This record gives sequence, structure tokens and C-alpha cells, in this order.
Amino acid sequence: MGKTLIFGHKNPDTDSITSSLVMANLEKKLGNDVEACRLGNINKETEYVLNYLGVEAPKFIEDAEDKTEVILVDTANPDELIPNIENVVIKKIVDHHKLSMKTSYPLYYRAEPVGCTETIMYKLYKENGVEIDKTIAGLMLSAIISDTLLFKSPTCTEEDVKVATELAKIAEIDVDTYGMDMLKAGTDLSSFTIEEILNIDAKKIDLKDKKSIIAQVNTASIDEVLTMKADLEAAMEKSIEENGLDLFMFVITDIVESTSKAIVLGNAAHIAEKAYNEKIVDNIIELKGVVSRKKQIVPIMTENA
Amino acid sequence: MGKTLIFGHKNPDTDSITSSLVMANLEKKLGNDVEACRLGNINKETEYVLNYLGVEAPKFIEDAEDKTEVILVDTANPDELIPNIENVVIKKIVDHHKLSMKTSYPLYYRAEPVGCTETIMYKLYKENGVEIDKTIAGLMLSAIISDTLLFKSPTCTEEDVKVATELAKIAEIDVDTYGMDMLKAGTDLSSFTIEEILNIDAKKIDLKDKKSIIAQVNTASIDEVLTMKADLEAAMEKSIEENGLDLFMFVITDIVESTSKAIVLGNAAHIAEKAYNEKIVDNIIELKGVVSRKKQIVPIMTENA
Repeated sequence: MGKTLIFGHKNPDTDSITSSLVMANLEKKLGNDVEACRLGNINKETEYVLNYLGVEAPKFIEDAEDKTEVILVDTANPDELIPNIENVVIKKIVDHHKLSMKTSYPLYYRAEPVGCTETIMYKLYKENGVEIDKTIAGLMLSAIISDTLLFKSPTCTEEDVKVATELAKIAEIDVDTYGMDMLKAGTDLSSFTIEEILNIDAKKIDLKDKKSIIAQVNTASIDEVLTMKADLEAAMEKSIEENGLDLFMFVITDIVESTSKAIVLGNAAHIAEKAYNEKIVDNIIELKGVVSRKKQIVPIMTENA
Repeated sequence: MGKTLIFGHKNPDTDSITSSLVMANLEKKLGNDVEACRLGNINKETEYVLNYLGVEAPKFIEDAEDKTEVILVDTANPDELIPNIENVVIKKIVDHHKLSMKTSYPLYYRAEPVGCTETIMYKLYKENGVEIDKTIAGLMLSAIISDTLLFKSPTCTEEDVKVATELAKIAEIDVDTYGMDMLKAGTDLSSFTIEEILNIDAKKIDLKDKKSIIAQVNTASIDEVLTMKADLEAAMEKSIEENGLDLFMFVITDIVESTSKAIVLGNAAHIAEKAYNEKIVDNIIELKGVVSRKKQIVPIMTENA
């Protein structure tokens, strides 16, 4: 039996990347033979974090041999994982999303409805009596800032804030300055193709029977992203056709103002009008005060589908 | 919003009943308004436990109003729960079985591959700094003895043994004497109808595409149970017809000798012959050394289905 591989979801965000590193460190401290992995490219925000902390990215993998032992972090959704996820042996899952997986065997599953996987990882370190060093604290803190948009997202819980405050002390990081720099680094879209921008944080989500993709980017200027509107629309239409989608919603979130607009295409676009009681004008809908796909988009869109 | 209801699976065993009581005690200590419930009758073994410890059984319920908040213990399998499980709000799950549920929302989910839910509950008390009193320790210990057949089942882990040893001290219980008395109390089938015997611990399980029921009873004498063979077979045939089953397997487990025989009926009965490399003679198959449905029956039967 080789190493146990640890990874988060495809299109990895800062939480998936840092949680695989942080979990690998914990498992190694507990004497287990593991390797931190990732299922996709490092995004700009995560790149900023890893550079700042001087940490190497986890190893890129596309799949794993059947029967490999794996640990999942920040997801339990088969659609976001390796193609043969049903043929590997999942030893553990640590996640903060809805339940999306069934297994034929019992395993260690730890999910809590908090804003970030790292908030749970912090507790696992405490429960196992493993010290959180300065670098590990920096990785955990970065993910909490990322997932909660500096504590402004409605997904952010008291526990996330409390844990982040503890971690900031250990990491010797000024949360507000570092946090805004880190989030802004993630808004740099200059090196991406249109297709890559749509895929930075895209989730395939069935809204009842409506096959959908809801993608999201963070920005400091929604207008700047909308200069690419025509190209984005063309690429979205192409994806709708190729994937047989009913809906493609591309959410552009202003991390400074904590609000969003979305480009909405597809035969089920009207769901968004019903969900938010807003008209879609020229394919764009206003999502005032919306920043969280998990809390403010998926449930209300599902309800109105 | 009313009380949060806490319950385990239908056909409740000692783990489901005690875990609902033990979880209710923990939640109350944490300041939450909860009520321990059960989805079925108390079995003889659990009756022995509750009488011994002087504890009242949880409240019997058949369903819960839509939107009720619930906490699940010892199961996350919708088939073993209330009919409208999809319309209530599951706040927490503590379980030691495979993953069998998907949700549209994040929740607290704590599963570990240990022998008994109470082994996890013990850790939750510790993590929350809540004292385990003598009665709570007795309830937890009884469930661990029940689920692991006094530590003899292959589902039993080192952690179960370690936790049980701690609990026995707090509960001031001699594990071997109490444990065997308790397990023997559970083998008393005298007051049951044939249908009730088949339902004491019956699980609907799909073995790949084969619709199956695998039921189990504990006994101190397999031969004594087999005096009812003709009646059991007739009731099993009736269930096969009524439920459109491919397989009905009734496992009779000798808790003293730690071995089993099973009555196997249905068009998919041959799966058992293949799984155990044993002939079915007169509808009976020898399952030498088999005591755990979860570890020694479901996986190997699924593999050979």
C-alpha cells in the first residue's frame, strides 16, 4: 500500500489547497504516510498565500490508482473529484459542505456547518494535541479569510472568527491588511483566457431537474469584469450547448463592496428573476448584498427552480 | 420552533436507544432544547439495560412535522428513518455506518469507523467538557457491549475497548458479568410472533441490483431458534412476495460461540453460496465465525451479487 493521498476539489481554492497541506502535516505528526495533492491549478489568491508563507504547492494529480487510500478535504462531492473516486478507498473526509456522497463502507467523516474547512482542522489539531506552528497557522488563517471574504460572508460563523483570531496571533499576521491584499491578488484575471475565468470557481449544480453551472469570480471592480461581457456570454453559450445545460450563471462578486452582479444564460434563466425578484436586463441580474454561492444563491435558486 | 428531536433507526437496538438518551443529555447540558425519541419498540436487551440503570425509554414517535429540527444518532440511512425525513431539518448526525444520505444543506456530521455510536459520543462529551455521570456511562457502555458482542465482533476497534474500559470504571459495572447477562436477555424470543422475530433487527439492503432484507437475531442456542424454521420460512416467503425481494437472509448468531447460521430464501439465494463457498442445505447456510452483518455479511454479499 502506497502513501495515502490527500486532496480537495477540482478548481481548487485556497481552502482546498491549504487544507490538503494542513491535513498532511497533521497526519504525518500522527505517524501516517501521506502526501498532499491537488486536482487543479493554483489560483492567484492561493499563489499569493503560498508565496507569502514560503510553502510549496501540493503535488498535482489527475487521478489515483484503484484501491488507493485517500483523504478528502473541503468536499465530498464525487463530481468535483477524480474520475475513479468510487474505486479508491476514502479513509477520511473533513468538509463544511452539504452531504453529496454515499459509500458502501464506514469511514471517518467530519463535517460542520462552518465557513471554512480549516476551522474544523484547527479543532482536529487541538483534539489530537498537535501543535499549530506559525506556517500552519498562516495557511489555516488564509483559507478562513478566503472562504468568508474577510468575515463578511453570511457563511461566516462565530467559530470561524474566533479560530481566525487565535490563528492570527500564532501566525503573527495583521488580518485586515494581509486579508485584503490576499483577496485582491485573487481578483487579477489578466493572465486568464475567457474559458479559464469561467472555470476559476465553477460548480456543476442540479437545481432540482435543471442542469446548471454556477460560477463565481471575485473582483474589486464589477465593471472591469463586464468589459469582457460579450466574450463571456459567447463562452457560456458554448458551454450550455456542449454540456446540455439549462442554466449558466456567472456571478461577479465585488469583495470590497460585498455585492454581486451575475450574467445569466440558458432556458432556465427565469429562475434567477423569480429567486431575487429582479429583472434580467441584457443578460445581467443585480444580486444586491449577495456574496455567498452556498448560502445566498444555491438554496434560493433551488427553491425557485 | 419546538424542541429538537433526537432519534436513531427504526427497529431500534441498544445503541440507537441509548445514543438518543446520551445525546439528549449532552445537548441539554449545552443549553439546547431537545427531546430523546425512538422510532420503534424497545427490544429485550435494551429493556434489560434501561431497567438495570433505572432509566426511562425515549418517547415513541412515528413521524415529525415538516421543518422540525432533528438530530440523528446511529444511522444516516433515510430508509431507516421517519417517512418525511427529507422535509425535516437535520442539524446533526453522529453515526458509525456507511454514508447513505445526501442533503441540500451543510450540517454537523460526525461519523467514525468504530464499533458503536457511543464510542463517538464519549469523545463528544470530552470535547465539550461535559461530565459523564454514572448512569450516562452505563448507557454508553451497554451499547458498546451490544454492538461489539462483548468485544468479540470484528467491528470492535481498540478505541471501543479503551472507551468501554473507562466507562466501566465510571459506571461501576463488571463488564463480563453484566455484558453476558445483558446479551442473554436480548436472546429471549418467547414473547415475539414470528413476524416480530424477523423484524427485531432487519435491514433492507440493496446488494447491487438485488433487493434484499438481511435480518439478524442473537441467541444462546441456534438449534432452539431453528425449532421455528418452518414458520420463519413461511413468513420470509410472504415478505419476499409482498416486498418484491430477491433475497431474504435471516442470520441466527450464537453470542456465546461467536458463530452463525442463516436461513436464505429468494431467487438470489445463490449469492450466499458464492460468498461463503458453502452449500445451502435445506435453506440453511453455515456462516462459521460470522457475527457482524456490517463487516462479514454486507460487503461480501455485495461483492458476490
